[in-house]
Amino acid sequence: MLKYKVYPRFGDSDLLGHVHHLSIPSWFEEARNPIFQWFNPKYDPDTWNLILARLEMDYIGQIHYADQEVEIHTWITHIGNSSFHIVHGAYLRGEYVALGGVVIVHYDFKNKRAVKIPEKIRALLEEHYDQNAPYRLTPQPELHEKTKILAKRIMAEEKNS
Amino acid sequence: MLKYKVYPRFGDSDLLGHVHHLSIPSWFEEARNPIFQWFNPKYDPDTWNLILARLEMDYIGQIHYADQEVEIHTWITHIGNSSFHIVHGAYLRGEYVALGGVVIVHYDFKNKRAVKIPEKIRALLEEHYDQNAPYRLTPQPELHEKTKILAKRIMAEEKNS
Amino acid sequence: MLKYKVYPRFGDSDLLGHVHHLSIPSWFEEARNPIFQWFNPKYDPDTWNLILARLEMDYIGQIHYADQEVEIHTWITHIGNSSFHIVHGAYLRGEYVALGGVVIVHYDFKNKRAVKIPEKIRALLEEHYDQNAPYRLTPQPELHEKTKILAKRIMAEEKNS
Amino acid sequence: MLKYKVYPRFGDSDLLGHVHHLSIPSWFEEARNPIFQWFNPKYDPDTWNLILARLEMDYIGQIHYADQEVEIHTWITHIGNSSFHIVHGAYLRGEYVALGGVVIVHYDFKNKRAVKIPEKIRALLEEHYDQNAPYRLTPQPELHEKTKILAKRIMAEEKNS
Repeated sequence: MLKYKVYPRFGDSDLLGHVHHLSIPSWFEEARNPIFQWFNPKYDPDTWNLILARLEMDYIGQIHYADQEVEIHTWITHIGNSSFHIVHGAYLRGEYVALGGVVIVHYDFKNKRAVKIPEKIRALLEEHYDQNAPYRLTPQPELHEKTKILAKRIMAEEKNS
Repeated sequence: MLKYKVYPRFGDSDLLGHVHHLSIPSWFEEARNPIFQWFNPKYDPDTWNLILARLEMDYIGQIHYADQEVEIHTWITHIGNSSFHIVHGAYLRGEYVALGGVVIVHYDFKNKRAVKIPEKIRALLEEHYDQNAPYRLTPQPELHEKTKILAKRIMAEEKNS
Repeated sequence: MLKYKVYPRFGDSDLLGHVHHLSIPSWFEEARNPIFQWFNPKYDPDTWNLILARLEMDYIGQIHYADQEVEIHTWITHIGNSSFHIVHGAYLRGEYVALGGVVIVHYDFKNKRAVKIPEKIRALLEEHYDQNAPYRLTPQPELHEKTKILAKRIMAEEKNS
Repeated sequence: MLKYKVYPRFGDSDLLGHVHHLSIPSWFEEARNPIFQWFNPKYDPDTWNLILARLEMDYIGQIHYADQEVEIHTWITHIGNSSFHIVHGAYLRGEYVALGGVVIVHYDFKNKRAVKIPEKIRALLEEHYDQNAPYRLTPQPELHEKTKILAKRIMAEEKNS
């Protein structure tokens, strides 16, 4: 488990007085910096090799601007051939107030295809792998095919109307 | 299906030249305004009655700042006793480039409990209900209990270390 | 004057119930899209030629999420050799609730230098030039030199301490 | 001078590969947390007493996502009866890459009026006052009156057209 601390900004709050639901995945993104660096030691945009395929967030408790410091816990919960899962928890006063994560694909932007995770990086991911992390992602593998069929149907309907 | 148009901002882009993954759920939030208004005709913070419990996003294709206009399609895909699912698609050149949605709970902030959706609003939700929407949310109902147990274990471990 | 409409999002609000001060310049950025397009007809990142040098914002009244629609007025208030000023007002119920603007430089990113505004684009800027716009920017021309001197002093102090 | 460290997020970048111009004032806002706390020890929204009247930003150099850590320097540059100026610099590799600041008003939200800064807080502001800070704000005091006159003229023109 990686630990990271974030500090809510006034602008993270919304009219209910809570931290807005989209500020939390932005904190999680900041907590992913060390993992991104395993793949991109110099964070070089020209050779960037990761793509985010899915985001999942569950909001369990409230976070307030007044909660001056929030701890982010990070785990790897799945390591596939070219993709892996990063899971995060926002931990405040002994509770997870938000949990979520992302499916990341190791990607070759030039040839537009997923590529195998190199062994050296796989070893780093395995080091932070935790089967008992408090969150598991629920990917929707058939989604891509389904949406293509539906989009075609919508286009056809629009042409006929 | 509700249709809504959004216009990417320069700042929505990231270093890969794509619209950043957190700008899209922010567009979806804007597209939810009419649904929020069914529950809160004057958008009054003092009587606000909705809480966001879960967010799910799948990124299928790339959106660029240059894609000056993106159409957002919105459906209701589940209507429970106090909660419901809103699902959105970002539709660009005949394809869904991103799909996602939120679980919303009709909530009484004073008494801190979920409350039944009033019949009049339920009728509006049903009007936009679509069984064949291109996305379905995958809630994790046992999550809340599990995280409480895990948080307690972490606290116990920290005390002992 | 260019007119443009924006629609506040729930997440634009902050804990005081107002639209957060950084959401408004983001709306202004969206309203600048047509001007950016004069310089970059296809919004192509590879040939992008504009750089933002200064931002100024004055907050006069409150905007709320409940103000479902805000009109943005845009003017050109200065046209220099390579730089120009874009000024915006957020206009709500017959009042300017926020005013501000940016200094933009026509820039050659390859050779890292400001370049003259082409005559065709200058003509478009002049068309929207308004001497009587409700806002004027107050650039700080000596700033760049001053900050370099100060930064050097800080570094020297740090070495000696 | 207050020192604070921020860590760029992937989403802070834009299509030019730079940190977007609106991410930097958001970092500055985070760096203001300790000053906000002088006025609001518990960050309580119900008794919040500060309002932001003006924002000014000058962009001097580029910041990249790859610049993993940016130091924010903060100074008080003006202490009035009810208002004061907070000035910030983003300091990277011995240079100020961005400078800016805000005019903040000590404000009574119930009675809708500016109120005198209490002596105890004034002493804290004075402790961080620096006449030689690398930035000075340029308020536009006549703006409020001017914009009211202009807004009336626009309304009159719209009625007549």
